[in-house]
Amino acid sequence: MNFDLTILGTGSAIPSFGRFSSSQVLHTHNKSFLIDCADGTQFQLRRYNVKTNRMGHWFISHLHGDHCFGIISVISTMGMLHHTNDIYIHAHPHLEPVLQAQLNYFCKDLPFKVYFEPLNPLQNEVIYEDRSLTVSTIPLVHSMPTCGFLFKEKVGEPHLNRELLDFYGVGIEDMKHLKEGADFTTSDGRVVPNSRFILPPTPPKSYAYCSDTAYTERIIPIIEGVDVLFHEATFGQAEAFRTKETLHSTAKQAGMIAQKAGVKQLIIGHYSARYATLNHLLDEAQAAFPNTLLSYDGMKHSW
Amino acid sequence: MNFDLTILGTGSAIPSFGRFSSSQVLHTHNKSFLIDCADGTQFQLRRYNVKTNRMGHWFISHLHGDHCFGIISVISTMGMLHHTNDIYIHAHPHLEPVLQAQLNYFCKDLPFKVYFEPLNPLQNEVIYEDRSLTVSTIPLVHSMPTCGFLFKEKVGEPHLNRELLDFYGVGIEDMKHLKEGADFTTSDGRVVPNSRFILPPTPPKSYAYCSDTAYTERIIPIIEGVDVLFHEATFGQAEAFRTKETLHSTAKQAGMIAQKAGVKQLIIGHYSARYATLNHLLDEAQAAFPNTLLSYDGMKHSW
Repeated sequence: MNFDLTILGTGSAIPSFGRFSSSQVLHTHNKSFLIDCADGTQFQLRRYNVKTNRMGHWFISHLHGDHCFGIISVISTMGMLHHTNDIYIHAHPHLEPVLQAQLNYFCKDLPFKVYFEPLNPLQNEVIYEDRSLTVSTIPLVHSMPTCGFLFKEKVGEPHLNRELLDFYGVGIEDMKHLKEGADFTTSDGRVVPNSRFILPPTPPKSYAYCSDTAYTERIIPIIEGVDVLFHEATFGQAEAFRTKETLHSTAKQAGMIAQKAGVKQLIIGHYSARYATLNHLLDEAQAAFPNTLLSYDGMKHSW
Repeated sequence: MNFDLTILGTGSAIPSFGRFSSSQVLHTHNKSFLIDCADGTQFQLRRYNVKTNRMGHWFISHLHGDHCFGIISVISTMGMLHHTNDIYIHAHPHLEPVLQAQLNYFCKDLPFKVYFEPLNPLQNEVIYEDRSLTVSTIPLVHSMPTCGFLFKEKVGEPHLNRELLDFYGVGIEDMKHLKEGADFTTSDGRVVPNSRFILPPTPPKSYAYCSDTAYTERIIPIIEGVDVLFHEATFGQAEAFRTKETLHSTAKQAGMIAQKAGVKQLIIGHYSARYATLNHLLDEAQAAFPNTLLSYDGMKHSW
């Protein structure tokens, strides 16, 4: 099933040139997943017509304000809008006491519950699973414990060859048996082996979100071959010297990771507040990995 | 001296039609005063080029999220931008424990201090004073303790009649004496009485901010005759029945208060999320008080 990504903010810590800070929504299998939640996210959600009624699981990469200050506002507004499904916030355990104090004071009568699901950003592990996909942590390298998130669709059921079904006039009951592995017997008694009907399942889709992070090749085995990689690209080459102190990446490094991990497509973002224009970041990333897109606030991307 | 007002958000609790929630900055006498601070205020400050380096005193009307959720982000960003002047937050005392917990976790190394100045929203009293102006609370009627703020310039020094000074050739030393109340003696010994030189001081300027509130005539003696009154106008006449339950005002009620208080100009805002267009609110307010302006995000108004 389609992965539909909406990128709500592409700036870094300090807002500039109209760019909001980190927040994204991935919609797939009739659910929406919020990834990071900067100040102002509630405005961006409405500005870009993102539906929030099926947005039950939120994933927070780390506890810098430009990735989590908007949580309380989104919850408060969803409360006023009579949202009823419970919300599960997957984040570093330090978030709970601070956010719970805000919830206790500002959101006393929410029509839904807010659950904290503490995660360990230092480990690569599955932290969410439903019948369609899993979400795993991707340990990153930043100035505080930080992880990215890998959204991976499960391998679906094999398909049946529609032309062959028609050719043999297979009925609904027999289709069920075929799916369960049985052979098919025609009305005149001939046996057609199951394998002739079975087509491989649709390749599972995947999305890796990696922000904020310094360049680290340790993530490569985790994100290898993903359909789309979002990787932060805070700096251009002229400011590459800043990555050591701030533990961010350059656009070129984002491209290098994408290339080494053999991903299908790279999207860069989390731009430093110093850049009014971003073409040089795109150029630098594309030099290492041509299939790179420059994200912008409100960008929608589906695959 | 000029009062320069920038209105950063004109929506109410739920963001809609691109309108941010309540936040304003009043700049006068080389200082900026932040009035309420909704989620997203840091973006609006930058979008509308509001200088924050002299923004030391912040006034929070009440502790609904659409008036205070942005505080932590503005502080955090000012920290990153190496702001050094201390910040004084005038608000209901309940704000301190919740915000302090956030500051302790997210803003450990601020280059300035944040002081909480608890106010009593039920009393009309001066809560800030410098040599140029005072700020007083205006008790309002809302679903939690709420006050507006009256910014009132102090009466300045009398002016000296420039033409008469020239006529008599008054020197700098004698001008000082005139300001202190002395008469002037000409070189040939004639005494010109002090009163002939003295012109009345410039009328002091004033601004009253009243949001959120139900219609209440108790504020009239406090805001009487102000230059500019900002009064919330959440609803139009068709939704007037909602004011009782929500303790907000209609545009017409805002106009009635302005008219009864004899203010010079009314600005309405804090519009319900249901209104895509606002002309009917302006019409309804103007029917009661013609000199009414409809505020919009980014509006700048000086007097």
